[in-house]
Amino acid sequence: MAKTRKPTKTKETLKLRRLGIDTYHENVAYLHRDCELYRAEGFQALSKVKICADGQHILAVLNVVDDDNIVTPADMGLSEEAFAKLGLKEGAMVSIEHAEPPASMSAVRRKISGERLKQQDFHNIIQDITNKRYSKTEIAAFLVSSGQTDLDREEVMYLTRAMLDSGEKLDWKESLVADKHCIGGIPGNRTSMLVVPIVAAHGMLMPKTSSRAITSPAGTSDTMEVLANVELDIKTLHDIVRKDRACLAWGGTAQLSPADDIMISVERPLGIDSNGQMVASILSKKLAAGSTHLLLDIPVGPTAKVRHMHEAQSLRKLFEYVGDQLGIHLEVIITDGRQPVGFGIGPVLEARDVMQVLQNNPEAPADLRQKSLRLAGRILEFDPDVRGGQGYAIARDILDSGRALDKMNTIIKAQGPQSIKYDPGQLTHEVLSPTDGVVIGIDNLQMAHIARFAGAPMDKGAGVDLFKKLGDSVKKGDPLYRIYAEFPSDFNFAVSLSERNSGYSIGEEDQTPKAFVES
Amino acid sequence: MAKTRKPTKTKETLKLRRLGIDTYHENVAYLHRDCELYRAEGFQALSKVKICADGQHILAVLNVVDDDNIVTPADMGLSEEAFAKLGLKEGAMVSIEHAEPPASMSAVRRKISGERLKQQDFHNIIQDITNKRYSKTEIAAFLVSSGQTDLDREEVMYLTRAMLDSGEKLDWKESLVADKHCIGGIPGNRTSMLVVPIVAAHGMLMPKTSSRAITSPAGTSDTMEVLANVELDIKTLHDIVRKDRACLAWGGTAQLSPADDIMISVERPLGIDSNGQMVASILSKKLAAGSTHLLLDIPVGPTAKVRHMHEAQSLRKLFEYVGDQLGIHLEVIITDGRQPVGFGIGPVLEARDVMQVLQNNPEAPADLRQKSLRLAGRILEFDPDVRGGQGYAIARDILDSGRALDKMNTIIKAQGPQSIKYDPGQLTHEVLSPTDGVVIGIDNLQMAHIARFAGAPMDKGAGVDLFKKLGDSVKKGDPLYRIYAEFPSDFNFAVSLSERNSGYSIGEEDQTPKAFVES
Repeated sequence: MAKTRKPTKTKETLKLRRLGIDTYHENVAYLHRDCELYRAEGFQALSKVKICADGQHILAVLNVVDDDNIVTPADMGLSEEAFAKLGLKEGAMVSIEHAEPPASMSAVRRKISGERLKQQDFHNIIQDITNKRYSKTEIAAFLVSSGQTDLDREEVMYLTRAMLDSGEKLDWKESLVADKHCIGGIPGNRTSMLVVPIVAAHGMLMPKTSSRAITSPAGTSDTMEVLANVELDIKTLHDIVRKDRACLAWGGTAQLSPADDIMISVERPLGIDSNGQMVASILSKKLAAGSTHLLLDIPVGPTAKVRHMHEAQSLRKLFEYVGDQLGIHLEVIITDGRQPVGFGIGPVLEARDVMQVLQNNPEAPADLRQKSLRLAGRILEFDPDVRGGQGYAIARDILDSGRALDKMNTIIKAQGPQSIKYDPGQLTHEVLSPTDGVVIGIDNLQMAHIARFAGAPMDKGAGVDLFKKLGDSVKKGDPLYRIYAEFPSDFNFAVSLSERNSGYSIGEEDQTPKAFVES
Repeated sequence: MAKTRKPTKTKETLKLRRLGIDTYHENVAYLHRDCELYRAEGFQALSKVKICADGQHILAVLNVVDDDNIVTPADMGLSEEAFAKLGLKEGAMVSIEHAEPPASMSAVRRKISGERLKQQDFHNIIQDITNKRYSKTEIAAFLVSSGQTDLDREEVMYLTRAMLDSGEKLDWKESLVADKHCIGGIPGNRTSMLVVPIVAAHGMLMPKTSSRAITSPAGTSDTMEVLANVELDIKTLHDIVRKDRACLAWGGTAQLSPADDIMISVERPLGIDSNGQMVASILSKKLAAGSTHLLLDIPVGPTAKVRHMHEAQSLRKLFEYVGDQLGIHLEVIITDGRQPVGFGIGPVLEARDVMQVLQNNPEAPADLRQKSLRLAGRILEFDPDVRGGQGYAIARDILDSGRALDKMNTIIKAQGPQSIKYDPGQLTHEVLSPTDGVVIGIDNLQMAHIARFAGAPMDKGAGVDLFKKLGDSVKKGDPLYRIYAEFPSDFNFAVSLSERNSGYSIGEEDQTPKAFVES
């Protein structure tokens, strides 16, 4: 009987090859299209495969290669992180097989069908994410499923705990470790760089770790970096905090809640953000950073993340519930989020505002000073020796006396002063008022957008400097703000964006939106 | 004043390079880490970038490369499909910029927050998916968001129409173009290869295009390919159908509902499946294939896709609603899905079953014959000249008289007989009954799983051949089924899977589950 038959298959192995391709938080394996194993196993591009050697294994997404210069049919190529994760040498022999989806995906599918998940489910999901067993699409499925019908508050607590357990924890060995956090969305809101020196000057421990900007024109780390080194190893961080009671450092070196970083890398490009994920992300990072007392700033305004008071209140309850369950002393302060805080937007301009406030410069932005004093005052009241209601006055005294400035200079010196002198960008453009009237609106999102287009936060001198704030009277032709950029292409992008929509609304005095809260 | 400043940036371009990397339905761009543009723009790995040249542009996900052999700092590498999509020559100069998410993602975000979407939203989403503007994570977000709270029936209709409009349409220029489809999940259910020759022998037009198996052990195309060529170009397909009234071909060449193929490539690995997506996927493909009359088979059983009669009824209503709105005459038949149909599972074994039925061989599986006659009978009644209730008898007459076999042979000859003689795999293992009793359960999923492990559908002779069906009496040691494989490693995997769970339940006569429907 005529027949065509493939040769009997034996357990084949491939030669491990490290490919210098950075696929970020996703493992990718590269197999040649003529690789015997690829053909025999019926893999498809983008299949998940399991790569095994010496009892180790990793999961990776498969890309198929037609170019012998990248991988030959006898090779198994791995992206940078995947190679590191497998932990073998180049040339090691590995085998591959079809990967079953990570076991915890069954919980994600239950979430998609509307079920409530348990602590163990969240634990398993977060462990699998941390260990890079999820593809980006699987992470997206988890995020969307838990965002759409939103998690209930116990689920948020389970998720927070699972994320906290996914990484390292800092232990400052003190009973009161103060921290603050803002949920974001308000440009120029650089209060941490004022609150930390005030609180530390009082003697309270406040080792502040922050992120860099992901979608905003500046994070606290980007701005602090204008003045000092922010990338500190854990030992240096501890030494500084022990000596000076505070730091203003980048948190990325410490492997705190690593699952959070991975999820954010999928969540941000999708532009999705749910309350449950936000609370779990913030609180897991704060708990991992060893904070015992946390003041949470929720700005409310028509172009803020939270637009109505009732939303702010329900977010507040969720923060309080999860914080209480996980043993962090947490207070929420709802603030005025109708417009950017201070004048500058972008690292150099914001650092200037901060230093002016510390120096008691009469040109310093009053709103940044005022808000920072309120926040610092509330944190000072975490101290059992501070009488309720007295925090604000103590904070003001510390600031006015120059002790906050001294503390800031001490922190800068300890972290290492910035060797580069950053200035505002040399390309400037002023946006003028089109009419007489009163400023009745400044769009937080649009101002952030213009500053980003101008080059912030990558170009530290890029950004926007506001000359007028809500309620200010203007004449036609008065400058409303100035755009700063370092490079012509960015400059042109930002100017043309401001021409399409300046972000400012000019109207009548009585049209100014009222603050939901004391400002 | 000391300062460090980057040189003034000009609009830079990069040299286009085609990388032989198949990233399936996702565009990937490769930039060297030392590429000036990469550094200046502050891209991150996995950012979406927009690649522009000559007024053209594509969106791609960014991978960062550290190896000059893959791309140099002056190159812009593109994966195979992305390169083809941009449509330029290697060496062309291209520029890149940050990509905004595709505009229709705002509709996806509205869906995530629970809104109902409109026809235009679905149109925009599907156009963007078809044009590869969505990353895999964005597709996952759309699928999960529209699966979790499920689409309402108008939304399913909008989605179906949008998917239909995304690709080519076949036009057979006749008023009655018959088609059938099963929602899947039942191994061995190879009725199309019987229904098509019966219906075509009656003179009705039935140009059947099918898929290959994605997660099952055999699709109609995989099985038909044991007998004939199934990869036909559009012209050949039309010629055959005009002459012989039917075909049994692979539908992949025709670019019907291409958005469906892209979404399936994300959906299947995630293991998610919603009624709305299923209905839109099936009906958009059928409408694009030019079908005017469709019989839809929904099997119900404890291990079928649909497990309860009420679910089958609500799925039926959804199919009927969308079918009516989009102008296809659609009837639903709910069938017995308690166990596999026929004896064989896997291409060669299923083809054998089909040919035995056509040949009126007394050893042919009675259930496959019976089910195919019922389906063919219902399709024949689409013919206005066939009296209601007479279809079954006509179908039986066509089959018994050998006219169906003649028609099948004509179709095989027209498509081109298979030149390879495929046989059942040479490695075999019989699974024996552990006890005396009656077969009270055969798990569809487990049998499919064992057949897949044995090598089906890639190895056409691999699979499972059932000796006992529901209700059959067995003695301890009687063979229940035989596993066939072509390669030792697959064989061992399949045997060990069957040892962990044979898929068969043996019990008492009265424990046999009753069919929900006439069988």
